[in-house]
Amino acid sequence: MALKKVAVIVAGSWGTALARVLVDNGHIVKLWTRNAEQAAQINQERRNEKFLPGALLPEGITATTDMAYAVSDAEAVLFVAPSSAMRDVAQQASGSLPKDALVIHATKGFESDTLKRMSTVLAEELGRPEQQIVVLSGPSHAEEVINRHPTTIVVASKEISFAEAAQDLFMNDAYFRVYTNSDVIGVETAGAIKNIIALGAGLSDGLGFGDNAKAALITRGLAEISRLGVAMGANPLTFAGLAGVGDLIVTCTSQHSRNWRAGSMLAQGLPLSDVLERMGMVVEGVRTTKAAHVLANKHHVEMPITDQLFAVLFENTSPEQAVGALMGRVRTHENEQQAVFHNKSINPDQVNPGL
Amino acid sequence: MALKKVAVIVAGSWGTALARVLVDNGHIVKLWTRNAEQAAQINQERRNEKFLPGALLPEGITATTDMAYAVSDAEAVLFVAPSSAMRDVAQQASGSLPKDALVIHATKGFESDTLKRMSTVLAEELGRPEQQIVVLSGPSHAEEVINRHPTTIVVASKEISFAEAAQDLFMNDAYFRVYTNSDVIGVETAGAIKNIIALGAGLSDGLGFGDNAKAALITRGLAEISRLGVAMGANPLTFAGLAGVGDLIVTCTSQHSRNWRAGSMLAQGLPLSDVLERMGMVVEGVRTTKAAHVLANKHHVEMPITDQLFAVLFENTSPEQAVGALMGRVRTHENEQQAVFHNKSINPDQVNPGL
Repeated sequence: MALKKVAVIVAGSWGTALARVLVDNGHIVKLWTRNAEQAAQINQERRNEKFLPGALLPEGITATTDMAYAVSDAEAVLFVAPSSAMRDVAQQASGSLPKDALVIHATKGFESDTLKRMSTVLAEELGRPEQQIVVLSGPSHAEEVINRHPTTIVVASKEISFAEAAQDLFMNDAYFRVYTNSDVIGVETAGAIKNIIALGAGLSDGLGFGDNAKAALITRGLAEISRLGVAMGANPLTFAGLAGVGDLIVTCTSQHSRNWRAGSMLAQGLPLSDVLERMGMVVEGVRTTKAAHVLANKHHVEMPITDQLFAVLFENTSPEQAVGALMGRVRTHENEQQAVFHNKSINPDQVNPGL
Repeated sequence: MALKKVAVIVAGSWGTALARVLVDNGHIVKLWTRNAEQAAQINQERRNEKFLPGALLPEGITATTDMAYAVSDAEAVLFVAPSSAMRDVAQQASGSLPKDALVIHATKGFESDTLKRMSTVLAEELGRPEQQIVVLSGPSHAEEVINRHPTTIVVASKEISFAEAAQDLFMNDAYFRVYTNSDVIGVETAGAIKNIIALGAGLSDGLGFGDNAKAALITRGLAEISRLGVAMGANPLTFAGLAGVGDLIVTCTSQHSRNWRAGSMLAQGLPLSDVLERMGMVVEGVRTTKAAHVLANKHHVEMPITDQLFAVLFENTSPEQAVGALMGRVRTHENEQQAVFHNKSINPDQVNPGL
């Protein structure tokens, strides 16, 4: 494999963990951050304490606050900014980034105002064909990748050769397996929307509802995010793969999940503003709930779990009421079409084509 | 809802928990067990200490060792025997069971020698049309149901009116939601084979591989059990529902799962015989691994996870070797078709129709 110069933007948990993978694979990595103190901590102490507490970073990562320095000689650039910052960092990088650099992103969310997918935002700001932008996604907690735990992910681009180039960059024998896919819309929507279900899983667990209830929530959540994804142009099979059900499972059942933790705090009765303050990191699921709520209306898709989460986050519905509604406290025996998960049964004739 | 006389056979964890649901719904329940001491403990102390330690059982359950007494006036009978005992208890019940009693089972496994599904075994022994036998399945740990935690399950029969009658028996507003399905083969194979993946998840966790690895294993496991199910005549959509992915998630991620626990003990290097002895209860996944291994060959279906589990259980392969093989230690970059999970990518063109 040819060694490459790679810029990683920004130095959050996932960006830092992916920088380690790139360094482990022999690439030369510059890690951009806005924060000079953080850059110094990474370069001098090999730590990124706020985002990956306790982890020792490898020598090969060079942190910098200078965007032109980070990207001007890059053969590949990985954008991992929060969805709200993506357009801004892409604008900053645009002038210095070589025209033939491979562009990859690993951000799970939509742009708030426009509801655009991240690959669209990057294509617009970098002046590239959208079909050449690669998205990286899958079941992958940064806290495990930084410790080289075995992980499998998906890279997708419409023009598959770009995804294959990203596969070359990231794949290794030791702990990081990379599969290619051409369904960018599916991989991006699955990665974004699953954070809503993770919030719901955190709520359910926080209320003490147990594993049976959470499994039902995840199963119905998978159906719901597939419906929206398919309405937006995704291939339904993507939702049965690593970027779909794989990522959904890890996000809903792992202690590392921010969205799950935010949901469990909401269940304790903390207001949203307090939860976000305590988290101290971006909780993409909160923004995504708002985005999916709008997208569901736009595409005429029923998303009962998203609706309940929206009500808890933005309309003062109590977590008990929301999960109660989802778990079907209301008697729906005679008219199951109105039931909990808007799905009487998994009789194939009645199932949405999304699954 | 009309109140019914229901016989439950046998008094294991799941049989006892389902007996509680029936009693909560107002039905009159006789719970059969071979063991006189256990029957006395249930009747006199309202406990079933071996199978549901700590749980207080409701008054309405009458335990008995007399099969004729249990079934002779039953309007419905629920068989929940281990798969290895199903034919025997069905034979015992057959003579006394009224011809028009509704027959339901909630056992996850195949008959060892014949590899027959449980509904086939029951149809043969009770002399009924197989399309009238109902299977009950879904994400449902007995330990949660006995404490009335919210739970959703599926009842399936080929002639749907029989599944609907079972739905009437079990459904309640408080904590137990029941969906109907007509894909008996799918529900039975999904429920049986997922225990193999749970053993694998226990192995992975026991070896300290983390949540990313486990999510990958579950995702590839879902693809694998779907492939076999579809080859056996199941509807692929069933595997995306509660009896498929729902049950798989709860079994692979919950501390209550016996199969997961057995897997984690195997990871510690305990021989299979010791693990089974320590469990003290039937671990269906062990038998099912053997059955699925034969069925996969018979139906020409690739099941890499099942193959590795079979090697650990019966061919002295070490857990490290097995999980290593599954996680792709072998370099497969140039020829991904040979990769880990026998699936280069989730590119829809390359995915098995099973998912």
